[in-house]
Amino acid sequence: MPHLPARVSLVDVGPRDGLQNERVPLTTELKVELVNRLSAAGFAGVEVTAYVSPRRVPQMADGAQVMARIERRPGVCYSALVPNLQGFEAALPGKPDEIVVFASASEAFSQKNIHCSVAESIERFAPVCEAARAQGIAIRGSISCALGCPYQGEVKPTAVADVARRLKALGVQHLGVADTLGTGTPRAVQAAMQAVLGVFELDELSGHFHDTYGQAVANVYACLQMGVAHFDTSVAGLGGCPYAPGATGNVASEDVLYLLRGLDIETGIDLDQVVATGQWISAQLGHAVSSRAGRALAAKKGTLT
Amino acid sequence: MPHLPARVSLVDVGPRDGLQNERVPLTTELKVELVNRLSAAGFAGVEVTAYVSPRRVPQMADGAQVMARIERRPGVCYSALVPNLQGFEAALPGKPDEIVVFASASEAFSQKNIHCSVAESIERFAPVCEAARAQGIAIRGSISCALGCPYQGEVKPTAVADVARRLKALGVQHLGVADTLGTGTPRAVQAAMQAVLGVFELDELSGHFHDTYGQAVANVYACLQMGVAHFDTSVAGLGGCPYAPGATGNVASEDVLYLLRGLDIETGIDLDQVVATGQWISAQLGHAVSSRAGRALAAKKGTLT
Repeated sequence: MPHLPARVSLVDVGPRDGLQNERVPLTTELKVELVNRLSAAGFAGVEVTAYVSPRRVPQMADGAQVMARIERRPGVCYSALVPNLQGFEAALPGKPDEIVVFASASEAFSQKNIHCSVAESIERFAPVCEAARAQGIAIRGSISCALGCPYQGEVKPTAVADVARRLKALGVQHLGVADTLGTGTPRAVQAAMQAVLGVFELDELSGHFHDTYGQAVANVYACLQMGVAHFDTSVAGLGGCPYAPGATGNVASEDVLYLLRGLDIETGIDLDQVVATGQWISAQLGHAVSSRAGRALAAKKGTLT
Repeated sequence: MPHLPARVSLVDVGPRDGLQNERVPLTTELKVELVNRLSAAGFAGVEVTAYVSPRRVPQMADGAQVMARIERRPGVCYSALVPNLQGFEAALPGKPDEIVVFASASEAFSQKNIHCSVAESIERFAPVCEAARAQGIAIRGSISCALGCPYQGEVKPTAVADVARRLKALGVQHLGVADTLGTGTPRAVQAAMQAVLGVFELDELSGHFHDTYGQAVANVYACLQMGVAHFDTSVAGLGGCPYAPGATGNVASEDVLYLLRGLDIETGIDLDQVVATGQWISAQLGHAVSSRAGRALAAKKGTLT
């Protein structure tokens, strides 16, 4: 049997990737509380917000206020997604520990959504990355549609590696391989990861999986078998993919934590606190928790809502 | 990377393990149609019904009629669960290709539920197995609570192996390792499988997982990596309504089929037909499909209900 990492770090992306795709708007206060609860639970990082167009993504309109009000726990990495230099400048006063820049591994997706090639979309991040480096802010790159695209279908590992190389050239220090559609299965996920391993070190990689097709926990397991030790997860499985109707969201933090606990892998995260946070935030959003482990553990405690 | 089986056979247990745990009663006609649709979709086997007390399990009260009316496709194994000799005799006129006998790997569970030791519970199947062998009916043994017990918690692989040996001694030809609670994670599942591999051949083993904690697809993948090539699954994840507290459905056939397709593993099953069957039966039961792949694939086709 392959060797699994002894310790894994998780970034909860619920406050950003999750809430961005939820219909019910939350107050700034609730968003701040969500971030604080997640960092208190022990997540290595929390993706707090995105500095994007408030017209296009109204859920993130109060990102600056959220960043300003959260409690900063030492050692926790608070990150923010920035789509361009304007977003980066808006993010600066909030002092993010890390910014997240992103590109699609699919030409069709890039052309359809931002009307430029993948290479051009990455080139646009050059001034952002330069400015971040000048400010000593860490840069994470995220490759979306790495396992499939709603327009072109298949996405080749070579395309993923190409994006990785371009991001690396801009000074990106950590790379996330994102299965935006949730269509990936273990071998394809391993092939995508393998492709970027030529560009980034193992410890610079993270997996970001959506559970739309029920494969995300298996995909995390497949990555663990390669030694990948960083993952993005979302409390209560918050969110969904706007490009896949009926989609479930990011893989639930609770499901991944349950897996890791079963594999005796350390995370430093209190699963009970995450379950309680998932129950609480889902109640605020007016829907059931979308984490199976979260529901089962809450049911066992008699706290399932 | 370990070698995966080129071909996997699935038994859909939705008509039995699924419906048994659904609240809404179905007509005999609908049950017959469900079985027929599953065998038409290409499942290697269908667990049709259980010959159990109609007072305790009213959903299975019409099992004899269902068995009598289904269309028997050549090559498909139609099985029925029998708890004792009385059940076996009731099953005989329906000519099951296979009977399923079962025992818990947990002493606490056995004592609490059937008021006898695990060994005693298995001994009670001796006349059933003898009669089945005399009739040329195949015998499948199922070990419940193989990965955890609601009363005693942990269940050791040695206990699972002990049940396997006792079942083997009765003439059981195929063994299912069942994670009844859904608490298993990949390494624990592999340990349980490894324990019974000393008693049964690899090709005589199947995995039966419940997705209560979101681990079932990962557990199937972990078994595939050991070469396990038979699994029980349930169309639409029947048996666990997503809105019912503590839902404990079987792993959805659609989710496992999606995994297997992604791994280029042959099953002979038409996933589209399974998705349509899952939509149809869930509508009859008045709830959403509990398969993530099933929902996503239906949404893509515009047929999600």
